[in-house]
Amino acid sequence: MSDTFEEKDFSPAFILVRPQLAENIGSAARAMMNCALSDMRLVDPDDDHLCSRALATASGADEILYGAKVFKTVEDAVGDLHKVYATTGRARDMIKPVFTAEGMVNDVKALNAKCGVLFGPERTGLENDDVALADAIVNIPLNPKHCSLNLAQAVLLVGYELFKSTDATLPQRLSMPNTELANKEEVGHFMEHLETELEYAGYFRIAEKKPRMMRNLRNILARASLTSQEIRTLHGVLADLTRK
Amino acid sequence: MSDTFEEKDFSPAFILVRPQLAENIGSAARAMMNCALSDMRLVDPDDDHLCSRALATASGADEILYGAKVFKTVEDAVGDLHKVYATTGRARDMIKPVFTAEGMVNDVKALNAKCGVLFGPERTGLENDDVALADAIVNIPLNPKHCSLNLAQAVLLVGYELFKSTDATLPQRLSMPNTELANKEEVGHFMEHLETELEYAGYFRIAEKKPRMMRNLRNILARASLTSQEIRTLHGVLADLTRK
Repeated sequence: MSDTFEEKDFSPAFILVRPQLAENIGSAARAMMNCALSDMRLVDPDDDHLCSRALATASGADEILYGAKVFKTVEDAVGDLHKVYATTGRARDMIKPVFTAEGMVNDVKALNAKCGVLFGPERTGLENDDVALADAIVNIPLNPKHCSLNLAQAVLLVGYELFKSTDATLPQRLSMPNTELANKEEVGHFMEHLETELEYAGYFRIAEKKPRMMRNLRNILARASLTSQEIRTLHGVLADLTRK
Repeated sequence: MSDTFEEKDFSPAFILVRPQLAENIGSAARAMMNCALSDMRLVDPDDDHLCSRALATASGADEILYGAKVFKTVEDAVGDLHKVYATTGRARDMIKPVFTAEGMVNDVKALNAKCGVLFGPERTGLENDDVALADAIVNIPLNPKHCSLNLAQAVLLVGYELFKSTDATLPQRLSMPNTELANKEEVGHFMEHLETELEYAGYFRIAEKKPRMMRNLRNILARASLTSQEIRTLHGVLADLTRK
């Protein structure tokens, strides 16, 4: 699942350009690990990416920091890549395709070749000279009035879109630990039990309304997606409530 | 665009349950601001969400912190909400619908009512008693081997999915600042200029191959999506290269 990119060796490289603080490099490594990415590259970092502060914020993603390659220039860092994307929150006076993060992921997948994503320094973002080296720009869709992200958060959002694209999980699934949904017969038996007791209690005062009243109760039960155990619990509740 | 949720007052509340550190509350506020969300609620926080450390990491999202409401219990915090989602990375022994972040957003939009999302304490996540108060669980799809996120990152990913759902931006658009794409006539003139010079230089050694050679060159130009200014630049380059 998460290994699709890895197996084909098309897992994009994440290239941190002149990162300033070791803590942020560590947090970015953790975010990459969250998204099953591992190819971290550093261009001329201001701080030591293997110092204790980096390892502390990496929070278990040490192997990504130890595996990170350090380059002097962006050109060196992107040499083996077939397509490079530059993340930037600001508009640039440059003619270049602009993708959302999700659009970039679709482009990467269509390309079937090794790509890389550039992330700029914390304070200033990428310089125009860095952006000029990229084939395309990535703008993460965010509140236009407040779109400045810290480094690890930008890494996380791009990585999350990449991970999502490899994840076949359905958008909704019902959690069913150690148990099973009741079958319709079990639900039916409980409805009969309930109907008997309601009849006995005089709940159906107007005979012609009974079918609708029963249907309403059945609907409530159906919507609750009850398990067999829960049906047994309800039988017990009903029995105790009606014991004279 | 980003105001859709606000205008209808269906912008979900983000409820931080027993957050431990003011810095994390501040970072969560910044992430909410990034995603154009504003309804922050705090349940029994361990730290002061208006202290200088919180305001420093909020990085401009002070108004969210000042507007945050503090509650003693999760029950109090969710009283006015119609549906509550609990974010959790761990499987719970509970029968509840489980959504991805994107699936949750679809559910919220279909509901058309005020919702809330619970986020647990940094170290432990939500307790089962908190999760039991929610209608559904949200699992953010991430590397199953390393899915632990810090608080602000969980807030950011759920907020990002909410923001994306209100953003009509196309997945790809061409950035065209202060200039226009060359029209086909301009491109055609340059191709003629190039053909003349290549003819003169003896580039077309085998006559029957000339159409294909020209087509290949034309393809390269077409793919580059050149502007009028860039066409003029290329005319100049060609003229200078062929000046004897």
